Amino acid sequence: MNKGDNEEINPDFVTRLAGFLEFDEGRIQHLFEKNYLARNWGKHDYLFRFDKEISRIERGTVFYEKDESFEVIMGFPKIRRAMVLDPTLRKHFSGLEKIAVEEKMNGYNVRVAQVNGEILAITRSGYICPYTTERANVKLNLKFFDDFPELVLYGEMIGPDNPYVPKEIYGIESVEFYIFDIREKNSGNPLPIQKKHEILDEYGFLQVRSFGEIPLETAAEEIAEIVRKLGEEEHEGVVIKDPDMVLAPLKYTSSQSNCSDLKHAFKFYNEAGRDYMLSRIVREGFQTVEWDENEAEFKKRCMQLGESILSPLRESIRSIKNGQRLYEEARIRVKDPKTATEFENYLKRLGIDAVFEEPQSIGDEYLINIKKINKSTNDKTQAILEGDLW
Amino acid sequence: MNKGDNEEINPDFVTRLAGFLEFDEGRIQHLFEKNYLARNWGKHDYLFRFDKEISRIERGTVFYEKDESFEVIMGFPKIRRAMVLDPTLRKHFSGLEKIAVEEKMNGYNVRVAQVNGEILAITRSGYICPYTTERANVKLNLKFFDDFPELVLYGEMIGPDNPYVPKEIYGIESVEFYIFDIREKNSGNPLPIQKKHEILDEYGFLQVRSFGEIPLETAAEEIAEIVRKLGEEEHEGVVIKDPDMVLAPLKYTSSQSNCSDLKHAFKFYNEAGRDYMLSRIVREGFQTVEWDENEAEFKKRCMQLGESILSPLRESIRSIKNGQRLYEEARIRVKDPKTATEFENYLKRLGIDAVFEEPQSIGDEYLINIKKINKSTNDKTQAILEGDLW
Repeated sequence: MNKGDNEEINPDFVTRLAGFLEFDEGRIQHLFEKNYLARNWGKHDYLFRFDKEISRIERGTVFYEKDESFEVIMGFPKIRRAMVLDPTLRKHFSGLEKIAVEEKMNGYNVRVAQVNGEILAITRSGYICPYTTERANVKLNLKFFDDFPELVLYGEMIGPDNPYVPKEIYGIESVEFYIFDIREKNSGNPLPIQKKHEILDEYGFLQVRSFGEIPLETAAEEIAEIVRKLGEEEHEGVVIKDPDMVLAPLKYTSSQSNCSDLKHAFKFYNEAGRDYMLSRIVREGFQTVEWDENEAEFKKRCMQLGESILSPLRESIRSIKNGQRLYEEARIRVKDPKTATEFENYLKRLGIDAVFEEPQSIGDEYLINIKKINKSTNDKTQAILEGDLW
Repeated sequence: MNKGDNEEINPDFVTRLAGFLEFDEGRIQHLFEKNYLARNWGKHDYLFRFDKEISRIERGTVFYEKDESFEVIMGFPKIRRAMVLDPTLRKHFSGLEKIAVEEKMNGYNVRVAQVNGEILAITRSGYICPYTTERANVKLNLKFFDDFPELVLYGEMIGPDNPYVPKEIYGIESVEFYIFDIREKNSGNPLPIQKKHEILDEYGFLQVRSFGEIPLETAAEEIAEIVRKLGEEEHEGVVIKDPDMVLAPLKYTSSQSNCSDLKHAFKFYNEAGRDYMLSRIVREGFQTVEWDENEAEFKKRCMQLGESILSPLRESIRSIKNGQRLYEEARIRVKDPKTATEFENYLKRLGIDAVFEEPQSIGDEYLINIKKINKSTNDKTQAILEGDLW
């Protein structure tokens, strides 16, 4: 696996980049050696990414040379989580009258921007995904990027043809891009929410659902109600924002979203992060206390938690016992079969073991089913079932 | 916190120890510097322990000078776990006709041996616990150690007055020592099971329950039945042994034991190890598949798992919300009040934050209640409830 191509960085480039970032040259050199700064490969090899957070520049931030200097597309700011709504909202947003509430959708984070005249889809980690890039070019009103070359769309790719996080729950036939932020290149500054809505409306972009502005005073209660309802539809939760986008947003999720994460994690129990699992479990504890649930509600929550953990575990162990291999099913829909080939190579380069089936023609596009293999859980489970010790 | 006293190791001692262990002198020096070899403090400062596994010498192994050489008491060999009984037993014990099955009791591992004329209780990590040592001297038939100074008892301290793992489930009033192995000093070689029973019977020692010898052919099925019954009484599980004690033993535990571990872990969710939690959850998955449970049994297992996780979590969060501090309750019963003081100092030295209440006289002994404070979970929970972000 080779995720980048740092060999050919020349000294002059290092000097200019050091000047631009206001880092020592030695530090830049070191970051390249450690692959914390990494050059993309292939036709996008003019693009560099931060593979680690450095001096408060988010991981996934990308940059490239432009007009004898550099242009930067900042990464997704990590949104911190309220474990309880009250007093967290009052404390975090203190001084505001109202806060804006938007749905947190369950998709694949992507930034879309014009870079050297091309429209690129940049992943959370700072890669250029060829599939997402093709979809963005097909689905989005590209006039926006000509009118605002200095702006970047921050959104989620959502739907069943999203090969990373396939979801049927939103009633989308293939994939769509739901935008949640517009930010400036270089500074990374977000537009205020009102301004964002105006522009997104004007160009006809899909937007994550807005629950409007809510008085801070009653927000904890109202948001609990919103999240409960979202949970009933298996939706994920909300992001709570300062309408001026000065204070950092917070997120808060439904129990169903925690359980859904756990279902996926325990299907591939040997791959999933321990902290990932634990945090989702602990959230259930805080939510049941904050929502002051009665015993019937609590029992229901226990059962849901237990089933979210044990059902996928049992399913995985049974499958392997029956001689099957575990895999994740995914699907893409492309205009150009070349995009599928490029995407296959891209996944390979990222170390993801995926089998692409034959394309099926559908309208003027092609559907391709993909099986992503999770080797570690497969091998571990098989070994245990054959008598290996833990 | 200072768990040892390595400052005063003299060069001659290093030379002799290097010769005895067949290590380079430089390596011995390094092990002392890293505190991987550590000297005890206070009146047992002639005693050294391995604070880390080194060259297949178990962590917790202790040694001391004797007759111009050294004497070693080997640590507890780590017993590996069968995740499924079949085919693991057949594979691990292949070649044996029969295997011996003993109950795995839920207590505190302790080795008891005569060292320089004293009877000492040595913990799994290789410390001399003053409380366990007093109890061993009170409870055990000390004639054994005069008759067999070269043998070491390997057992569990069990019962409600065990301050480490207090358990009421065994119907013990205070604490007792249940022996499971007898091993030789220096070599660490265990006695064959038959011989062990004879000696333990002769001196009237309590022994962990034996389920006798079982044909390897039918062992998986019979042991599943034994473990199911043990689980119904909230007992932990079994250790499965080669009767000659040549092949290493294996362990296998009940669902109730997994859930009981989880209850404790999630009460102190910020202290407990992530791997500890996950492994107990994954065992539930393998057991339900191996035991081929029907949907009703499976639902019950899900509910038990969910409750074992969420109930203690809710309890802890609620307590802190109500202004209480979380602690573990423990209790000791001593003959000599000085033992309690020594034990308090001992815990302090190990970095355990414990509050000792006033001794209450009971017969010719004293009961002392102890509160062990779990600072990390307390502080984290409090912070979250006050609006801190995750």
